[in-house]
Amino acid sequence: MGERSLSNSRSQVPYLHKVGVPPRQNLFKEFQATVKETFFSDDPLRSFKDQTKSRKFILGIEAIFPILSWGRNYTFKKFRGDLIAGLTIASLCIPQDIGYAKLANLDPQYGLYSSFVPPLIYAVMGSSRDIAIGPVAVVSLLLGTLLQNEIDPVANPTDYRRLAFTATFFAGITQAILGVFRLGFLIDFLSHAAIVGFMGGAAITIALQQLKGFLGIVKFTKKSDIISVMQSVFSSAHHGWNWQTIVIGASFLTFLLFAKHIGKNRKLFWVPAIAPLISVILATFFVYITRADKAGVAIVKHIDKGINPSSVKEIYWSGDYLGKGFRIGIVAGMIALTEAIAIGRTFASKKDYQIDGNKEMVALGAMNVVGSMTSCYVATGSFSRSAVNYMAGCETAVSNIVMSIVVFLTLLFITPLFQYTPNAILSAIIISAVINLVDYQAAILIWKIDKFDFVACMGAFFGVVFGSVEIGLLIAVSISFAKILLQVTRPRTAILGKIPRTTVYRNIQQYPEATKVPGVVIVRVDSAIYFSNSNYVKERILRWLMDEEEQIKGDYQTKIQFLIVEMSPVTDIDTSGIHALEELYKSLQKREIQLVLANPGSLVIDKLHTSNFADLLGENKIFLTVAEAVAYCYPKLAEDP
Amino acid sequence: MGERSLSNSRSQVPYLHKVGVPPRQNLFKEFQATVKETFFSDDPLRSFKDQTKSRKFILGIEAIFPILSWGRNYTFKKFRGDLIAGLTIASLCIPQDIGYAKLANLDPQYGLYSSFVPPLIYAVMGSSRDIAIGPVAVVSLLLGTLLQNEIDPVANPTDYRRLAFTATFFAGITQAILGVFRLGFLIDFLSHAAIVGFMGGAAITIALQQLKGFLGIVKFTKKSDIISVMQSVFSSAHHGWNWQTIVIGASFLTFLLFAKHIGKNRKLFWVPAIAPLISVILATFFVYITRADKAGVAIVKHIDKGINPSSVKEIYWSGDYLGKGFRIGIVAGMIALTEAIAIGRTFASKKDYQIDGNKEMVALGAMNVVGSMTSCYVATGSFSRSAVNYMAGCETAVSNIVMSIVVFLTLLFITPLFQYTPNAILSAIIISAVINLVDYQAAILIWKIDKFDFVACMGAFFGVVFGSVEIGLLIAVSISFAKILLQVTRPRTAILGKIPRTTVYRNIQQYPEATKVPGVVIVRVDSAIYFSNSNYVKERILRWLMDEEEQIKGDYQTKIQFLIVEMSPVTDIDTSGIHALEELYKSLQKREIQLVLANPGSLVIDKLHTSNFADLLGENKIFLTVAEAVAYCYPKLAEDP
Repeated sequence: MGERSLSNSRSQVPYLHKVGVPPRQNLFKEFQATVKETFFSDDPLRSFKDQTKSRKFILGIEAIFPILSWGRNYTFKKFRGDLIAGLTIASLCIPQDIGYAKLANLDPQYGLYSSFVPPLIYAVMGSSRDIAIGPVAVVSLLLGTLLQNEIDPVANPTDYRRLAFTATFFAGITQAILGVFRLGFLIDFLSHAAIVGFMGGAAITIALQQLKGFLGIVKFTKKSDIISVMQSVFSSAHHGWNWQTIVIGASFLTFLLFAKHIGKNRKLFWVPAIAPLISVILATFFVYITRADKAGVAIVKHIDKGINPSSVKEIYWSGDYLGKGFRIGIVAGMIALTEAIAIGRTFASKKDYQIDGNKEMVALGAMNVVGSMTSCYVATGSFSRSAVNYMAGCETAVSNIVMSIVVFLTLLFITPLFQYTPNAILSAIIISAVINLVDYQAAILIWKIDKFDFVACMGAFFGVVFGSVEIGLLIAVSISFAKILLQVTRPRTAILGKIPRTTVYRNIQQYPEATKVPGVVIVRVDSAIYFSNSNYVKERILRWLMDEEEQIKGDYQTKIQFLIVEMSPVTDIDTSGIHALEELYKSLQKREIQLVLANPGSLVIDKLHTSNFADLLGENKIFLTVAEAVAYCYPKLAEDP
Repeated sequence: MGERSLSNSRSQVPYLHKVGVPPRQNLFKEFQATVKETFFSDDPLRSFKDQTKSRKFILGIEAIFPILSWGRNYTFKKFRGDLIAGLTIASLCIPQDIGYAKLANLDPQYGLYSSFVPPLIYAVMGSSRDIAIGPVAVVSLLLGTLLQNEIDPVANPTDYRRLAFTATFFAGITQAILGVFRLGFLIDFLSHAAIVGFMGGAAITIALQQLKGFLGIVKFTKKSDIISVMQSVFSSAHHGWNWQTIVIGASFLTFLLFAKHIGKNRKLFWVPAIAPLISVILATFFVYITRADKAGVAIVKHIDKGINPSSVKEIYWSGDYLGKGFRIGIVAGMIALTEAIAIGRTFASKKDYQIDGNKEMVALGAMNVVGSMTSCYVATGSFSRSAVNYMAGCETAVSNIVMSIVVFLTLLFITPLFQYTPNAILSAIIISAVINLVDYQAAILIWKIDKFDFVACMGAFFGVVFGSVEIGLLIAVSISFAKILLQVTRPRTAILGKIPRTTVYRNIQQYPEATKVPGVVIVRVDSAIYFSNSNYVKERILRWLMDEEEQIKGDYQTKIQFLIVEMSPVTDIDTSGIHALEELYKSLQKREIQLVLANPGSLVIDKLHTSNFADLLGENKIFLTVAEAVAYCYPKLAEDP
């Protein structure tokens, strides 16, 4: 049934349906609806509806600290999963933290500090169950590069560290503000393709930087582009490489990559997860026994014992560095946020639970603000550790607490043992960690799906590799914005034709079998008509008309008498758009062509009426469907010879 | 015929039509087409097709200097029109120029200089037939404000003037570059509403500034906001006002406004056009006779005789002021461009000829570059003088040449006579000229059509009036961009229902008579799905589903088994969009709801295939129309009790 009877009944009552004019909303309601859709599209207060005041208060507290809500249902069984996952990510994070701190030009203990306090804060405030919090490679590199532009970390380590805390503070403030003011959608402006390229480029850059530790080079460039690094590497090939270092580095890198290979078997995921810690223990022990450091193998040398000291007084609350820290913090905070939200969403969709992006930002922001006051630098969700966390069977954020406790114990008791850890092993760990960020499969898919996305991806990639992280980031953001601007200034338009034996009108380029109606040009505009494109739309429609007229001139076909604009995709129109329609109407009038509109949406038809354009055009020239509009034109055309 | 038979045949062959997959284009062609549509959407080389080389060369020269093309058909009859129009706008521009130069804190002769050289350049290069070139109020004010922030025009007039020429040079360069690289669409990013507000605010600010000359106040604030100005005015009410000045100003302002009123009769358009010059002559004569300047009536005092001296050496080619001039030039150049293009388009559509925006920009840019080297400041199209030009019957840009010659003669012979011109009369002329820029009718129309546009309009207006031109401009640009960003991040979605006795599915909010199909949720997404909105779209669709499920829970209706996404308005999709669809598909799978797509466009269906999403979904779940998709769902639902 259905289709058939519908069609029949349709043709019995041909032009019954007028284009609906929606009931007028009052201004306040309209405004409210838009604000709600923009900032509260996820309807965060849904659960607060129809509750008593005290209940609302409890719900409010629970919204800020989700642990109060899921903590009540916490079971021992869940704890078993969290314990194993927490221990696994702890063993992975400790060596990584030490390495990543070096990327940020900070002493190794600051990496560990950043894996102690922030995960605890996140555990009580965050809503993701799978994310593993701590320092990450890309943000460490970015922060290190940006800070280094302001202060030399070797000549002036104290000021450098103070600026790092200042930047961390403002990164946290930025994140929290975005969350509180529900501006989370701003991070959506960095396109997926640009992120893939940026991450890949950053990974290559980080890996190249590791050649310093890996080859035991002492004099190394401070620039991060591939050309400077390669020059550095080869110019020191003869006397700057240290073969003992290379042996240690290469053998453990082989071990780590092999472990990674084994880890592809999902049951053996823990092999690559604990391989780094095992490598560190073995290498440290080996260096300690053989005193290879005397033979020129660079080691960590010194690492502070004890937990995070307060750093409240180290943050610059005034002066020149306040502004610089502020700017660096915004950039680092946004990138950290992008990574954390992407991770949160990925794992939430795997386990099918919802993540509130804005709430998540508040949690991440709070954790970095507290972190900046407890000697931590910018922490966020780590993709590699979150994946391990997930595979190790974590159930809740308790796995972060477990990891945090392990790091705490490490800081209290074990850190002195790390002083004999060779830098080469840290480099090997970082290289094996970041190569996963080079997502060439994603790049291939992007190439297949969208060539312009691929240009964005490659632009960001080569920008990072041949320029610097900042240049790459700038390219990524610029290309993303250019795409958005292109989208709004140059909407697509299409000429429609009738699909044989239907009343359906479709793009004749997509459906070559579709036939044009003689004497009628049907144009579809594929976007809202706003000030940014109204002129283009008007001129493009006139150009379609000119093209059609030219074709007809050759064919001696019927003169064009009607222009139907199919407005289904035109979801909104503004004053500039109305002006453009008026101009189009006047131009057509001079050529003795009638303008006919098909299916304007509710907002559009409303504005056509209030602006009196509907009266100017004639109410009877606005139709529900293209088919009805054509039916209106057709009998008239028949009169013409 | 038509409709009926089509419908019948349609229902006989129900599911015949597959969604068309367009023929694959090769990458280069695809890229070429996009570049063409973005930068050459007006197809500027159309006339060059199939021509010999020498002909192409001539066409190229003519494209740069349109005067060569229209000059050949120039007749004496046209010249008569141009002569009258040119003389009329000359009489209007001379007093305005002197006043506007003061707005830019420059000596009066610089206003006249700017009405001599630029119109000549424009006449040979421009394509508008009606625009009148010269200094304009808003750009003069903007330039004056921006320059004043850098250099004090009273303490350091030489440097100030040099910076003004530097800014003019870069304004011209900016305009020319936008034209050459075909980036003209960038000026479309300033919305009509924001411009109306900005112009209105600037007009009020300019009028308020004239109170200084109008009331004969000596000590006057340098700020332009209404509060500072009013404080200045009232604090000098007791001893700072000069009654003779007020009498002169008020009587001539009355005369000018009366002339304007008479000018509403289209035949008497010349009355307000020559009234300013008559006022100047009368007032100057009166002051000269009565020596009212001795009684405290401020007069112009000094005005250089002779034509434009060269200013090539005055432009800052290096140093700190180069950068400042560059930045000021970009802003002033863009605003000047916006005004000129708006005027060009308005009058072109009145006389039904085409304006090539990009070519126009090159002409305006060239004229300002040459102007900056001949002691002119930023010139552009003046709305009031262009309107007079049009009404006086101008035929071509020759009217600008006529005006330019009159200004040339004035500079050579008459300028010394202006030294007794009272400032009050200039203030009166400026006030009567700018009040037309307060376009309250446009503001009312904007309020009626689009409330958010109205907010932008008022934001820009109050920003200028209570802040400064820069603040107003910043607000205008920010609101314009915010609207664009909102448009791409929060596309609209709608639930569709079947319109009774048709196969048409429409938004149930617009068509309350439309009925939902039980067990099926039909959602239409009203935008291309890009990285900037893919997450929102996915979550919004799931929220529609939740809403529907909640309703059904109450009604004990059929369980929802199908989600149809109507994709007609989805003109494009990128990798992030495909990811979002995949996530949607997985979420629905867990809830045992089938995802069905209706009418994806050519780009979308292509990408659905290359990304293998079409295979994942099942090729048979993509339909040409919503009706066919429902017909697919319906028999299945029937099996369910």
